[in-house]
This record gives sequence, C-alpha cells and structure tokens, in this order.
Amino acid sequence: MAYSARQKLFAELLGTALLLAIVIGSGVMAERLAGGNVAVALLANTLATVGGLYILIEVFGPISGAHFNPAVSLVMAFRGDLPRGLLPAYVVAQLLGAMLGAWLAHGMFDMTIIQTSSKLRTGHGQWLAEGVATFGLLLVILRAPVGRASAMVAAYIGAAYWFTASTSFANPAAVFGRMFSDSFAGIAPASAPAFVVAQLLGAAVAVWVHRVLSARAS
Amino acid sequence: MAYSARQKLFAELLGTALLLAIVIGSGVMAERLAGGNVAVALLANTLATVGGLYILIEVFGPISGAHFNPAVSLVMAFRGDLPRGLLPAYVVAQLLGAMLGAWLAHGMFDMTIIQTSSKLRTGHGQWLAEGVATFGLLLVILRAPVGRASAMVAAYIGAAYWFTASTSFANPAAVFGRMFSDSFAGIAPASAPAFVVAQLLGAAVAVWVHRVLSARAS
Amino acid sequence: MAYSARQKLFAELLGTALLLAIVIGSGVMAERLAGGNVAVALLANTLATVGGLYILIEVFGPISGAHFNPAVSLVMAFRGDLPRGLLPAYVVAQLLGAMLGAWLAHGMFDMTIIQTSSKLRTGHGQWLAEGVATFGLLLVILRAPVGRASAMVAAYIGAAYWFTASTSFANPAAVFGRMFSDSFAGIAPASAPAFVVAQLLGAAVAVWVHRVLSARAS
Amino acid sequence: MAYSARQKLFAELLGTALLLAIVIGSGVMAERLAGGNVAVALLANTLATVGGLYILIEVFGPISGAHFNPAVSLVMAFRGDLPRGLLPAYVVAQLLGAMLGAWLAHGMFDMTIIQTSSKLRTGHGQWLAEGVATFGLLLVILRAPVGRASAMVAAYIGAAYWFTASTSFANPAAVFGRMFSDSFAGIAPASAPAFVVAQLLGAAVAVWVHRVLSARAS
Repeated sequence: MAYSARQKLFAELLGTALLLAIVIGSGVMAERLAGGNVAVALLANTLATVGGLYILIEVFGPISGAHFNPAVSLVMAFRGDLPRGLLPAYVVAQLLGAMLGAWLAHGMFDMTIIQTSSKLRTGHGQWLAEGVATFGLLLVILRAPVGRASAMVAAYIGAAYWFTASTSFANPAAVFGRMFSDSFAGIAPASAPAFVVAQLLGAAVAVWVHRVLSARAS
Repeated sequence: MAYSARQKLFAELLGTALLLAIVIGSGVMAERLAGGNVAVALLANTLATVGGLYILIEVFGPISGAHFNPAVSLVMAFRGDLPRGLLPAYVVAQLLGAMLGAWLAHGMFDMTIIQTSSKLRTGHGQWLAEGVATFGLLLVILRAPVGRASAMVAAYIGAAYWFTASTSFANPAAVFGRMFSDSFAGIAPASAPAFVVAQLLGAAVAVWVHRVLSARAS
Repeated sequence: MAYSARQKLFAELLGTALLLAIVIGSGVMAERLAGGNVAVALLANTLATVGGLYILIEVFGPISGAHFNPAVSLVMAFRGDLPRGLLPAYVVAQLLGAMLGAWLAHGMFDMTIIQTSSKLRTGHGQWLAEGVATFGLLLVILRAPVGRASAMVAAYIGAAYWFTASTSFANPAAVFGRMFSDSFAGIAPASAPAFVVAQLLGAAVAVWVHRVLSARAS
Repeated sequence: MAYSARQKLFAELLGTALLLAIVIGSGVMAERLAGGNVAVALLANTLATVGGLYILIEVFGPISGAHFNPAVSLVMAFRGDLPRGLLPAYVVAQLLGAMLGAWLAHGMFDMTIIQTSSKLRTGHGQWLAEGVATFGLLLVILRAPVGRASAMVAAYIGAAYWFTASTSFANPAAVFGRMFSDSFAGIAPASAPAFVVAQLLGAAVAVWVHRVLSARAS
C-alpha cells in the first residue's frame, strides 16, 4: 500500500512523540521509584526504551520508515531511500513530535508542562560516546536483515544506554525533545549543539564503513 | 480449526484469570522480596507480565483472539472481527476470569482470598496516562504484522508499565480484577470508573488514528 | 535425521545437567553478589534461567524433545509422542543429570560438591503454586505453535519464577537436583514429595484443559 | 555476495572492538552508577552484552561469520568452515580489535587510555567455569538452527554471566582485551593463560559432544 506524504509525516510526528514520551516518562518514573539508586533507574529506563522502540518501529515502519531521527532521515535521503524533497518536512515533524512527547510525559506525571533542562552533558568523552552511539545505530540500520530492524535497533539502543558514556542519545530529535525536560533524561540546551555535531559525524563514519563492507572486490 | 463459542469463552476466562494471577502474584512476590525498593519491585512485576502476556497470547490467540480485555473486544466487535452477539459474553468471561485470577494469586501466597483494594489511583495525570496507555495498546493490536502481536503487546506493556504514570492498566478487566486485591497491583473501587472511562477514550482515539493512517489517498 | 535411543538419553542427561547447573549456579552467584537484596538475586536467577532454557531447548529439542522433566516425559508418553518403553530411561537420565548439574555448579563455585538442602518449602500456598506452575508449563508445551516452544517455555518460566509463590520448580527432576544443593535454589528432601505430587496434578489438569480446548464441536 | 579477505578481517576487527567496548564500557558505567551493588552492576553489564552480541552477530555474521573469538575460529578452521590460511589473520584481527575496543571504552569514559588490569581471577572453580562456559558457547554455535545463532549466542552468554563462577569470558580475545582495562570487567595478565587453556579444553569437549550427538547409528 502506498502512503501519502501527510500520512508519513503524521507517522513520524506521532512516533517521535511516543518515543520521547517513553524515554522521558520512564526516566521520571524510574527516578521517582528508585530512591537514589541510579543504576536501577537506568535499567528501568533502558527496558522501557527497548520495548517501546521495538513496537514503534513495527507500527510505523511500513508507513514512514520509522526514522524518528533526523540523522537517519539524512542518511536515507543521501542514499535515495527517502525522496530528498521530503527531508525538511521529516525533520520538522520529528522535532515537533519530540517536543510534544516531552510535554505528554510531563502531563502524565503531573509536572509543569513547559520546562528547560539544566543538566549539562559535555566533555570529550561524552562527544566521543555520541559519535560511537550514532555510528553503531546507523550501521545497524544500514545492515539489518529484512524484518529484523525493529528488534536490532531496540537491542542496540539497550546496549548503548550502558556502553556509551552519554547513555546514547544518538538522535538530534531526541536531543531536541530532552532539552524540554528538566528530569532524569534531560539535556541542557547549551550541551545540545556539540551532541548533534558528534552524532552527524558518527553517522557519516557509518555510511563510509557500510560502503567499505559492501564494496565488490574488483 | 473452528472453535465453539464455549471454547472461546473458556479461553477468555482462563486466559484473563492467568493474566491477573501473573500481574497480582508477581506484584506480591516482588513487594515481599524487594524490601521497600519499589523500582526493583516494579522491574520484577514488569518482566513477569511481559513473559506472561507473550505466552498467553500465543496459547489462547488461535482460540478466542486472546483479548482478555473488554476494550479490545469492543473495538473488535465494532470492526466486525468479533461477532457482536458474542461481545457481552466475552466481557462477562473476562471480568469473571479477572476476579478468579486475583483469588488464585491470593491462594498461592497464603493471603485472605477475598479482599478489596484500598489503593487510591486518581488525578488528571493518572487519567491521561490510562488514556495514553490504552491508545498505545490498541494501536499496537490494530497494526501488528501477522505473527508478531504476541511479542509486540508484551513489549508494549513492558514499556507502558514505566512510561505511563499509572503503570498502564489499559484494560477494564484488569481494573476489575485488581480491585479485589489489597496489594502492590491493586486499585481502590472508587478509583476504577475514571480509569475505565479514560481507557475507552484512549481506545477510541486509537481507532481514529488507525483510520487516518490506513486511508487511501483519493 | 533419526537419533538413536542412546543419543536421546545423552541429550536428556546433558541438557538436564546444564539446566540445573544454570538454575543453581546463577542462584549462588546472585546470592553472593546481591548482599541480602533477595529481589535482585531472584531477578538475576530469572534472567539466567530464561536465557539458559531458551538455548537448551533449541540445542537438544531436535534430538530428544528437550523435556528435561519427568512430568513432561510422562505426558508425552501418555499422548504417544514418546515411545512408552523409553519413559523409564528418560526419567533416570533426567534425575541423574539433575544431580550432576548441581554438583557441577558446586564445583564451579568452589563449594562442597555433595550437599543436602535444608530449605523447607511447604504449605498449601506452595503446593497450589507448584500445581499452577506445572499446569501452565504443560499448557504452554502442548499448545505452542511450531518453532516457538523454546521462547515460550523460557518466557513462561521467567514469569512463573515471580507469580507463583514457590518460584516455580514445575519439574520433578528440578526438585530432585535442587535437593542436592544447600543454596538459594535448594529444597529440603522432606519438602520434595508434596512438590512432586502437586506438579503431577497440575500436569494432569493441563492435559484435561488441552482436550477441552481441542475438542471438535459435534 | 562474496566478501574479500580484507573485508572479513575488517569485520572481525571492528566487531571484536565493538564487543569489547560494550563489555568493558557497560561494566564501567554499571560500576559507577551502582554504588557498590555488584549484583545490579552485573545485571546491567549482562543486558548490555546480550543486546550488543545479538546485533554484532547479525551485522557481521554474513561477512566474516562473526566469530570475534579465536576459539570459535579455531573450531571453524578445524571443521573446514573457515579456510585454514585465514586463521592466523582472523586471530590477529580479533586480538587487535579487542585491545582497541578496551581503549575506545576508556576514551568514552574519560579514563586513562592505556591500562593494565590488576584483577586476579584464579583457582580451580574459575578454570572449571571457563571450561564449562566455552563448552556451552561452542555447543550453541555448532548446533544452532539456521537464523537463530545471533539470539542463541546472546541468550547463552547472558545466562553464562551468572551461572559460571567466572562470569563467562569464554573467548581468548575477550581475555586479551580485558587485560587492558583496570575496571569491573578486567582480568590481570597473570590470570590470563590459565583462562585460555580452560577455554580451549572446553571448546574441544564441545566438538566431541557435537560429534557424539551427530553420529549416525550404524
């Protein structure tokens, strides 16, 4: 079935909103219940994100590709898998959805809807971590066997929450949405630009590695 | 193979009973062992529910559709996927099963069999959370690819236990059964009606979104 | 490929030994690391058992059916899925394997190899729990779609560790092997016979429910 | 598609580097957040490793076989599944990748890049555990049904982190890489040789058991 551009953009907006509501909402719940045990809070945050990503990719994948991520859309447009004319609208839908998702989480948890994060995330380690995290995410997306992308992206992000020092945002829209939440999963706006730059560099390296691994011997 | 109406109703009753025994029983076990660490208790409750839902949907899906949930049966009847004449009996079987499941959990844990929950769950955040939780559940059910509904519903509920402020009942029969348990997973009868209203509204929104996403461009 | 009776019995012995080494070994590790946090210890014990069951059923299923459980072998022989002449040897291989698995765990953890559990597990709740646990296990096995038994049995036991008050032994060979370990997962010999009786009753109810659900309307 | 030897070696190097970055990085993160609760730290380390192994095997399996492990490559070369001339280069790529992965983890977590572990892991229990762990890993690899190796290896290692007393290195390259990290997942160089010997013995037993289980009755 062919979906209209409006349906695709609605899918990206709704999917990204639910993704951010899951990431931020589970972070709030985990922080409230864990009583200072940050490892247990991040475990809960991880499991919720893994389960949520799996179903969001299954639900919205057939409609819009289930990017929910400007770095992914950029790579897909570059490869010709997303019509380039749709790229700006995709990114706008993702950023708008991310912000709405943060607000939805706040509404469910009786928090002030409109917030700004004060959580600084900075330094060479964090930036390297975001580059590695996004490199891995794109490599998984570009090389996943048919029908396994949903489970693989979910499993990858579950691992990356722990093995990257930044807990793996790996997504400029996630950075944008989390700026609007002064909670466990938030990021201060001042820390955002460097995260996005690191993510785009990581994505570029993934595209290069994918080519090297796919090149025919001549 | 064609199943008789009796077999379908037996499947709904038994499946809903086991679902509630799993939700309530694992809540009791987790609360007893966790020694006040509520995040760890909810993690255990989550994992047990995820595993249990997965197998219950696989086991009873081919017989009755494995709804275990009046909101799901209502949507299925509305769409013509469940004969409308069966809807009242389905709901009765689910409610009865839910109550029996609570009692079964109490029996296993040497608790007074007949109880009423005193746990108030109320407020705008809780109601929004139940609406979102049920919206997501129905969207997953309506759009799951063939053969993946069991894993997707289980993964979704696992995420929703954490990202919705209400720990995602998302099911009027679950509300009904949990009223009969004064334990970790319980809900006071006074809090029940608003939960059910929110769930039905969430289900209605899911049906509408599903239509928007499925409409043919004209 | 056809496997010889010797190969089947070796598979049952080795598989049951590894299953018990996993159950008991992960219990010892979890107890040592958790520092009194029993909920965290049971979570670790659960995840190890789920992962282990999944791979053991995949590895040994094509050879012997991967019963690892006299209650399962009994039902299979009753249904004609296991030659009745093989039943006694299957049970002996499972019991022997279970004991060797306990010893293997003790060897790995530098514990006295030969032990007897002093952990009493008794009372109506525990027995009801074992009946329910084994009922559910057999229902899952009898009704699992082709190719999903491994994931379903693993997921079911993961849930049953938490929702049944007994942490779901659900297996006379597991009872036997755990008698030989005075650790987290152990059971005192005096508590064993009632567990086995409850398990066999639960298995019988599962066979009956399976028939009711499979009967053709006449 | 046929891959060149260079592509295979690059896949082994990159995959092993990412595997070690995941194992060591998630160990560092878990230790930092868990505040002395070692069981919670190992749970997080386990989940990250399980998710990471799953996607690494899916991504690199079609290219190089996704061994990331000299014991696996040795068995594959012995069976003729890996050209014997490639074996030395595979092992070098794995060892080099493992070391680079440790360094990558250190870089992300702002640690001194070049370290040596001081964590002694020794004794009969540890060695038996490594033998059992590697035996199980090879048995899983040799007998996994087509398309299930990624999930099975991941699930197995998740169980083995807990049921073997050594937390299941089961891989000489993992031993090598972890020597370079004085963190949660490290191993002192003095403890390494005995681990590798135990691993190779465990692998040999797995090859023998696989033959016994595969032999045709004559």
